[in-house]
Amino acid sequence: MWENRLSYDTVNLDDDENALVIIDQTKLPNTVELLHLSKQQDIREAIYRLQVRGAPAIGVAAAIGLYLAANGIHAERWDDFYLRLKEAKDYLASARPTAVNLFWALDRMENVAVKNKALAVRDIKKALHDEALRIRDEDIGVCRSIGEHGLALLKDGDGVLTHCNAGRLAAVRYGTALAPVHLGRERGMNFRVFTDETRPLLQGARLSAFELVADGVDTTLICDNMASQVLKNGWVNIIFVGCDRVAANGDTANKIGTSGLAILAKHYGVPFYFCAPSSTIDMATGCGADIVIEQRPSEEVTELWYERRMAPEGVKVYNPAFDVTDNALISGFVTEAGILRAPFTESFRRLKGSAIALAG
Amino acid sequence: MWENRLSYDTVNLDDDENALVIIDQTKLPNTVELLHLSKQQDIREAIYRLQVRGAPAIGVAAAIGLYLAANGIHAERWDDFYLRLKEAKDYLASARPTAVNLFWALDRMENVAVKNKALAVRDIKKALHDEALRIRDEDIGVCRSIGEHGLALLKDGDGVLTHCNAGRLAAVRYGTALAPVHLGRERGMNFRVFTDETRPLLQGARLSAFELVADGVDTTLICDNMASQVLKNGWVNIIFVGCDRVAANGDTANKIGTSGLAILAKHYGVPFYFCAPSSTIDMATGCGADIVIEQRPSEEVTELWYERRMAPEGVKVYNPAFDVTDNALISGFVTEAGILRAPFTESFRRLKGSAIALAG
Repeated sequence: MWENRLSYDTVNLDDDENALVIIDQTKLPNTVELLHLSKQQDIREAIYRLQVRGAPAIGVAAAIGLYLAANGIHAERWDDFYLRLKEAKDYLASARPTAVNLFWALDRMENVAVKNKALAVRDIKKALHDEALRIRDEDIGVCRSIGEHGLALLKDGDGVLTHCNAGRLAAVRYGTALAPVHLGRERGMNFRVFTDETRPLLQGARLSAFELVADGVDTTLICDNMASQVLKNGWVNIIFVGCDRVAANGDTANKIGTSGLAILAKHYGVPFYFCAPSSTIDMATGCGADIVIEQRPSEEVTELWYERRMAPEGVKVYNPAFDVTDNALISGFVTEAGILRAPFTESFRRLKGSAIALAG
Repeated sequence: MWENRLSYDTVNLDDDENALVIIDQTKLPNTVELLHLSKQQDIREAIYRLQVRGAPAIGVAAAIGLYLAANGIHAERWDDFYLRLKEAKDYLASARPTAVNLFWALDRMENVAVKNKALAVRDIKKALHDEALRIRDEDIGVCRSIGEHGLALLKDGDGVLTHCNAGRLAAVRYGTALAPVHLGRERGMNFRVFTDETRPLLQGARLSAFELVADGVDTTLICDNMASQVLKNGWVNIIFVGCDRVAANGDTANKIGTSGLAILAKHYGVPFYFCAPSSTIDMATGCGADIVIEQRPSEEVTELWYERRMAPEGVKVYNPAFDVTDNALISGFVTEAGILRAPFTESFRRLKGSAIALAG
């Protein structure tokens, strides 16, 4: 069903333009089910229940969701239309109260409506339609650029190791960390990819392994604690991982386990790159110590799939969602604007400066 | 049930001396069930089905099992007795064809019978009874000595990190890597122990966490990929792990994940010790490259508990049971004869030399 990767983006507006289409990630890897969602309740539920996950994917899903809500509003006057649009926006925004990208996409949609309030409602709807697809296309474009720059670090047949899922399932088409691999596949290249299973929630086993196998990539699943042996075997030429936040000095927060992998990479002399949109670089955060690490429920560790307990009662659990990788361990950041190298603060300033100059 | 640790050794002859008593490890951590096994078929099955596991524990279980078999033989003449004893020995030995310690214990039992063949059968049975309990007591003594030497590296309140289960469940009373912790507890000391869950078979979550909590130890379970963050937090003063084989140069094979942990320990400046009987040092193996790493079935990784698939069809799996830790990463070996430090080959020769001198 998913063999033809170009026909099925992770998140999209369906061909009839009356539904959001997503792959139900809660059923992966055992069942591939495309959901066509047109009711607001179902769209909010899909975001809440992680049927669609990954910051870029959530943003695109929300934007398309809000367009569908707008399109269903029967109103001729701006005030009536805007009131109901705001209601729909707040409803979708409540699905994941800490998902920054969700709010960002919904705000962007609202701003387009406001900017076009002088137009007829049907034309405002058209503007919202176009903005939602623009958000989708921008994500594809940014990820494709990350893929281009990352691909310059690879040669055909290389071994790549990744952690968690920063792939197309977390975005729309290419993903971030896996963008170089998917883009290379489009061009007929072959890589050997090792994916950490990524405990406790197994995003590597369930999602990365799935999307790589679906893309015809030679994929080997390992437990997180096997990475040292795989690197020692000399099977890995480069490590690509995604990230959640980059501090101004280059210290970087990503899925728990990333910092350990970076230390192993340094020990074995394997290049270690974060792949992310440049918007992930947060100059307002000075260094890793300024990043608060979210603690998650202990049941994620003690009860696999929340079904069967596999640790004794009475044991404590430490379950941080992220860890911070020290800048000294990082070979570089693969962004849509190119590869950024140490000294990172200077590289980041130069990039942000040119972006500000362009915007000005 | 298991609160009083001295009443319940992991493997023992029951008080009536007519059954082997073990804790059914396949039911841990959810159910603590003591099995009283007197039939040879049940004893063999318990070893085969991993109801008792860990090299020392298997050896003691087999020795007690063979004594029980011998005791049940109705024969007056040595030839008749020996024939049936050999049958029983071969039957038990077939339970785990690669468990060296199983054969070692059974051979030791057979040798005692042969050495005493001139005695009456009832006296031979008595000699076998004593030998089985001697094997049990020697294991307790060796592990206690490992505990004594390891305890010298700890102070009250220290943080200890361990991997897999090299605890009392793998031996009789103290274990190896966890011997310092259990012995310290006997003396009223308290430690904060972090245990890696140890994928894929979760011996850390299921077994180490269980026996530590049962011993009243402040125990925190983490996923393997969280060790880096725990070390970075400064919570760990020392790492204690067991091992399967030590090469002459100090390179050491142990449960997969150990080498990565040793690299993290070096990075964060945390002492890293292997705890094991000196018999684990194999001077016939030159270095780590000479150790063949067993590959295990992919289902251990792709199907948790062999019940539900959590990785896509078509994915390859690399599932080595062990990895090898380079000698340069090792602070020392805690053995029953003391702590051995680099240069390891010299330390090992000195120990083995004095052992040979004592034996000679």
